[in-house]
Amino acid sequence: MSLPFHGPTAGILVIGEEILSGKVEEENARYLVRELRGLGVAVRRIDVIPDEIDEIAEAVCGMSGRYDHVFTSGGVGPTHDDVTMAAIAKAFGLRPARNLELEAKIRSAMGANLHERDLRMADIPDGARLLYGPDGDRSHWPVVTVRNVYILPGVPEIFRYKFAMVRELFRTGPILSRAVFSRESEAVIAATLDAVVAEFPGVAVGSYPRLGLAEYKVKITVDGRDAAMVEHATARLVQGLGAAVVRTE
Amino acid sequence: MSLPFHGPTAGILVIGEEILSGKVEEENARYLVRELRGLGVAVRRIDVIPDEIDEIAEAVCGMSGRYDHVFTSGGVGPTHDDVTMAAIAKAFGLRPARNLELEAKIRSAMGANLHERDLRMADIPDGARLLYGPDGDRSHWPVVTVRNVYILPGVPEIFRYKFAMVRELFRTGPILSRAVFSRESEAVIAATLDAVVAEFPGVAVGSYPRLGLAEYKVKITVDGRDAAMVEHATARLVQGLGAAVVRTE
Repeated sequence: MSLPFHGPTAGILVIGEEILSGKVEEENARYLVRELRGLGVAVRRIDVIPDEIDEIAEAVCGMSGRYDHVFTSGGVGPTHDDVTMAAIAKAFGLRPARNLELEAKIRSAMGANLHERDLRMADIPDGARLLYGPDGDRSHWPVVTVRNVYILPGVPEIFRYKFAMVRELFRTGPILSRAVFSRESEAVIAATLDAVVAEFPGVAVGSYPRLGLAEYKVKITVDGRDAAMVEHATARLVQGLGAAVVRTE
Repeated sequence: MSLPFHGPTAGILVIGEEILSGKVEEENARYLVRELRGLGVAVRRIDVIPDEIDEIAEAVCGMSGRYDHVFTSGGVGPTHDDVTMAAIAKAFGLRPARNLELEAKIRSAMGANLHERDLRMADIPDGARLLYGPDGDRSHWPVVTVRNVYILPGVPEIFRYKFAMVRELFRTGPILSRAVFSRESEAVIAATLDAVVAEFPGVAVGSYPRLGLAEYKVKITVDGRDAAMVEHATARLVQGLGAAVVRTE
């Protein structure tokens, strides 16, 4: 949880039996990690769990306390396996309640094709907020939000459409990242990495070996929010690694 | 956690700062979910967390108690961010200790290129088992295992090589799956799904809407271990949905 540099954090909770059973490839967390990173938010955890009320409630409760923002994906339709709203209500001790603004939107959108079950999508935790995006255009479908939990649907196209409405809420100073490529193995360079980690507690140093590449054996990353510190740590790393450095990025 | 059908379960713990920061796409959980499903093991949770000892220890401890098998990916090299072995030792109250069999293998493999830091990869939880695969061929690198936790590396090629050594340990009766495609929306078919869910408590029914396809609006899946029950539930679903059925798989 504790990154060496400060700034907003997030957890992503994917409610996805279809991912756990291998029927569908996960797309939403993968997308969101990169979006949030670009906005300056550090994702600290991704959990993929089944559509079970108690398990969702427990995970939401834990993430909501640990991270600045929590995003859920999935389980918000009208069928038996859509239990996310009930679970989030349970997580915070709230009552699920029919939201009249959502009900009116569903009735208006469906017209003569309305089925009673469509209205289940208007049953949300009592006290939830509806977020409409920066232009306040209420013709969109809002993002249902409870405390710091943003509830998004599992269908990737709608997930992206809805996240786009709220994304500017999360923009903050960027996370900067440099990379150094080493022709020597991790064991050879480990002591140098240790020294840089000890000297620069404000950056995160990652070490990622690759197999079978002619160009390099290890990619080392230096991440942080303070540009001078990231540059300084990278320079120290390059100096320490000497002839092992293939190139930097 | 509780699937409607019985059988072995698994949790997957990905220790991957590079995934959380969006630098690398997750491959190992994605691979393992399908392998385990093919072997008859139901994955019930995938967590992606940073390389932090306390967080790994807490996650391993929780998963080890909840699922039959736990697989970890990543954090087993010789650098500062490789803390998985220490974390798993902590999870079970074990001491990290130099394993002589692993030390001998590392010394033999590295020869004159041995670096002291390579030997850190021989420091594993005291009492861990080394698994060599069904042929018992000790020229391979073994899979380090503590209780029901199988510790695998993050580099995808090595992850797959090592999992292949132990995969036959997990084979059990298959999980069967049928699919029914509906031209009607979830709201229209929800009552029929409810009825099948209520009538067949031994199968798992999933409902997955798709946008923008001409062929169908919802894919419904019926999973279980009892072939007759899966067929029976699928037939009931097809009967209940009537003209909404596009096709089955």
